[in-house]
Amino acid sequence: MLRTHTCGELRISDVQKVVTICGWVQRIRNLGGMTFIDIRDRYGVTQVVIDEKSSNELHSIVEQLGREFVVQVRGEVVERTSKNPKNPTGEVELRTSNITILNQSELPPFTIEDDTDGGDELRMRYRYLDLRRNPVKNALMLRHTMAQEVRRYLCNKGFLEVETPFLIKSTPEGARDFVVPSRLHHGQFYALPQSPQTFKQLLMVAGFDRYFQLVRCFRDEDLRADRQPEFTQIDCEMSFVERDDILDVFEGMARHLFHTVKGVEFDAPFRRMTYHEAMSLYGTDKPDLRFGMSFKDIGAQLKGKGFSVVDNAEYVGGICARGCASYTRKQLDELTDFVKRPQVGASGLVYIRYNDDGTLKSSVDKFYSADDLMLVAKVFEAKPGDLMLILAGKRNKTLPALSELRLEMGNRLGLRPKNQFAPLWVVDFPLLEWDEELQRFFAMHHPFTSPHPDDIPLFQSNPAAIRANAYDMVINGVEVGGGSIRISNRELQQTMFNTLGFSDDEAEKQFGFLLNAFRYGAPPHGGIAFGFDRLCSLFGGSDSIRDYIAFPKNNAGRDVMIDSPSSISQQQLDELNIIIKE
Amino acid sequence: MLRTHTCGELRISDVQKVVTICGWVQRIRNLGGMTFIDIRDRYGVTQVVIDEKSSNELHSIVEQLGREFVVQVRGEVVERTSKNPKNPTGEVELRTSNITILNQSELPPFTIEDDTDGGDELRMRYRYLDLRRNPVKNALMLRHTMAQEVRRYLCNKGFLEVETPFLIKSTPEGARDFVVPSRLHHGQFYALPQSPQTFKQLLMVAGFDRYFQLVRCFRDEDLRADRQPEFTQIDCEMSFVERDDILDVFEGMARHLFHTVKGVEFDAPFRRMTYHEAMSLYGTDKPDLRFGMSFKDIGAQLKGKGFSVVDNAEYVGGICARGCASYTRKQLDELTDFVKRPQVGASGLVYIRYNDDGTLKSSVDKFYSADDLMLVAKVFEAKPGDLMLILAGKRNKTLPALSELRLEMGNRLGLRPKNQFAPLWVVDFPLLEWDEELQRFFAMHHPFTSPHPDDIPLFQSNPAAIRANAYDMVINGVEVGGGSIRISNRELQQTMFNTLGFSDDEAEKQFGFLLNAFRYGAPPHGGIAFGFDRLCSLFGGSDSIRDYIAFPKNNAGRDVMIDSPSSISQQQLDELNIIIKE
Repeated sequence: MLRTHTCGELRISDVQKVVTICGWVQRIRNLGGMTFIDIRDRYGVTQVVIDEKSSNELHSIVEQLGREFVVQVRGEVVERTSKNPKNPTGEVELRTSNITILNQSELPPFTIEDDTDGGDELRMRYRYLDLRRNPVKNALMLRHTMAQEVRRYLCNKGFLEVETPFLIKSTPEGARDFVVPSRLHHGQFYALPQSPQTFKQLLMVAGFDRYFQLVRCFRDEDLRADRQPEFTQIDCEMSFVERDDILDVFEGMARHLFHTVKGVEFDAPFRRMTYHEAMSLYGTDKPDLRFGMSFKDIGAQLKGKGFSVVDNAEYVGGICARGCASYTRKQLDELTDFVKRPQVGASGLVYIRYNDDGTLKSSVDKFYSADDLMLVAKVFEAKPGDLMLILAGKRNKTLPALSELRLEMGNRLGLRPKNQFAPLWVVDFPLLEWDEELQRFFAMHHPFTSPHPDDIPLFQSNPAAIRANAYDMVINGVEVGGGSIRISNRELQQTMFNTLGFSDDEAEKQFGFLLNAFRYGAPPHGGIAFGFDRLCSLFGGSDSIRDYIAFPKNNAGRDVMIDSPSSISQQQLDELNIIIKE
Repeated sequence: MLRTHTCGELRISDVQKVVTICGWVQRIRNLGGMTFIDIRDRYGVTQVVIDEKSSNELHSIVEQLGREFVVQVRGEVVERTSKNPKNPTGEVELRTSNITILNQSELPPFTIEDDTDGGDELRMRYRYLDLRRNPVKNALMLRHTMAQEVRRYLCNKGFLEVETPFLIKSTPEGARDFVVPSRLHHGQFYALPQSPQTFKQLLMVAGFDRYFQLVRCFRDEDLRADRQPEFTQIDCEMSFVERDDILDVFEGMARHLFHTVKGVEFDAPFRRMTYHEAMSLYGTDKPDLRFGMSFKDIGAQLKGKGFSVVDNAEYVGGICARGCASYTRKQLDELTDFVKRPQVGASGLVYIRYNDDGTLKSSVDKFYSADDLMLVAKVFEAKPGDLMLILAGKRNKTLPALSELRLEMGNRLGLRPKNQFAPLWVVDFPLLEWDEELQRFFAMHHPFTSPHPDDIPLFQSNPAAIRANAYDMVINGVEVGGGSIRISNRELQQTMFNTLGFSDDEAEKQFGFLLNAFRYGAPPHGGIAFGFDRLCSLFGGSDSIRDYIAFPKNNAGRDVMIDSPSSISQQQLDELNIIIKE
């Protein structure tokens, strides 16, 4: 090794030792003839001091140094006169007479500091420099720790890590596949997996009993902020289980991660909520339960008083923001603007102030008496000082809009602290979603999800009403994982494919291998997959998954550092037998 | 859980417990009214017994059962009268009055036994059934254990597991890339990584200091037996190291694996051998050191006696097979045929028998006297009873041929037992290989490998003579890992690219991001990558890596189970803007 110690290692007990460290020049200060250099590596920062009486040779080396030069420094550990308690190595410094420049550095395009002056695009282009910054480095170290702890937990539970293939087969169901032209098989393509779903089910058919994998998955979607074309899943499957067995094991995994990585404990079991309850109370299937402010349906109280917006609405509901009665006109206008944004989509906002003096004041006083408003306040269990915010309209538009408003109020009231965690399970999702445009059902989870056993007869009478035996783990309003008990019966799987509009032939062509496998003794099984990038960012307290990916792509799916995608040679195209359309 | 115990769990101490197990029907035997059913799961086999006095209902269920049916069995654990000491559960059986059929099975296309009647192609097509067989299941469990132990060792050594991207950029150097057409960027392509080489080097530039990853890699090569288009590497890189630091750390990893997985210990340090020594002594850069039989150059002893084959040969060398003087004419003819096979390529074989009576007898007695032969025997340190086998010809043809002959003799003499392991390091590889056809140099390892520091001046005078600072770990004649100290200096990297025939422009276009990164303080660094599939098969004592891959492709790169690659829809082609050539 070119060093005896790292830059994070030296302590007061090392004083008088002669050591060698290597690292990057973080900072150089010249104070009255003495030169102090902070040397940084992954492990920390150590201060090096060069005496004014040092050799000319040493001084001339020091004069060449600039930020981010790579150096090897040999010297004696001495106690500092002015200690730095914020730095673990801050009680000592390295008095050196020997510095070797291992490599030079041009001036970096942005400062390598916790708060950098570099913009997003620049930092992406020089990702290897951005990765030197503590926040990014720490994000990836957190990810490393989480990966190891996931494995530790699952291995202890008897899960086997099995690698599934990346060059698989394109299937039309689900998102768009990335495909890989085959050179050896003219006109044919592999596809990159959107998830190892069918393979993990085959592993259950194979009797592997408990499987997991931290695995890259791919989706060729039109990108939006914070979506990556490649992402990592914690992918798991178990045999001979019922729903609650899976919830127990993976609630245990979440607890293990919170305990080991964050030192956070949860006394109570994770709350379980049906999809229906989540939609009614929070307008979303991934409610943020760090705060309450659940929805109240107040149609009964407000309808029939001549306010046509309300009278004609399918749904009238609202939230009660405690202590916000004093909101100014300007603040209320902001909220109105907020709900009218196209992303939220409400047509307007009704408010009722419960003034400190006990009176009620609303934006629709001309339709409602004080008594009317008091009935509404009762539903909200509002108290003087509270503010009620109400939306009305189509149910499937208004619930999500009200959910956005609730989150906005949560933000404004500081009710969503990053270091507080509110996990829950959402269960009993609908099995199917009707697509109006295509006039067909789609699987809400995927076509392998089993229906609730009680609901199987509904395939004939009312498919839309079938509940799935599916579940999501939601933390702080983020869906971190989701899964289901799978279909393990060939006939039921065929019924499902038929309900999704597959002919028997199509089902056979796409998923014949799975249907075939079900002929030979498929065990009851189910599983779950966690979005690992997002889970890491949640644990790290960040809204962006990009910081938790070493080399992310930008929102256009480009890696701007290596400049990819890029053109390939004519020879490559020829070998693949493909032509690019003009 | 649908079970209280697995099929591998019940012991004599569980007698009288009422338990539930789930699994597959392995075997049904009817003995005088009693029915015995072996139920199998991942963990083992448990015998279930159905009394002749059981209910009609139970008997009628049992009558329906066939091999590979999935059942749930509830019953009382009882001590067996006739115990089976070979089975860990063999002291007990489950006396049941309650069997539930969880799923049926058609008759499998081959028997699910350690020795199956299914052929390769059939087992690949029904891989999920093949995976139920102990040898294949155990291979993948071994792989699981090895993966976890690799991580445990490297994490303890401070390595961070960092995931690198799969959608990267095509580069012309090295093997052929699999490419992925971009839908969002017309006419552009991602490539799948042949290895994360440049990314791990960028992680070193980023200061990550110690990196590893178990990572899938891809090569679109013309397939040959036991090559897979996707394979897994243990990929590692370290900063501030010299060659021997890396050898120490990864020799440690190999020892850790041998210790924890195989219970094998090595007292002495792994032998280190230069490439030149390996080629001279064993005719290969991956010698199998489970046995000796090293080459002797006997040109000096045999030349000039009128035997033109030898006199005109660039190289004359051989091996001494102890105790083989009694080989029959037929055996010697077999060996001659062996070396003349096109894959071996020798033109003939000379032998010298050292008879038990002390006389020498050769196939070329007409050219050599007994004294001549005795001089040769001296070089071989041969004794009565030994057989000397000699090849002559071009050095670069004869050495590999002699290597094949040596391995063949090792096999014939039982000197290559699967449970014996002989690891070594091969070092000081040539940096460059001259390609006669293309009239240019190629990097023997890859273009990022640093030259031996002493040899840098040879870039001007004699590039072919430059030694690389590279190393391979070889075990039992298999190259399990290889790596190098990397170039971390921009100018040297540019020199290397130029030597490989890249113009500055081409180097910039392909590897500009790396050359750029070297501007900003690249630390000295180096690394290694192990072929994980092969390492597992070596530990498992198999010659085939396929058994150690859950869902392998066949020799034509096809997954015959899912039938991939396959055609994709016109819509997909249109979205990707590509046309398939007729």
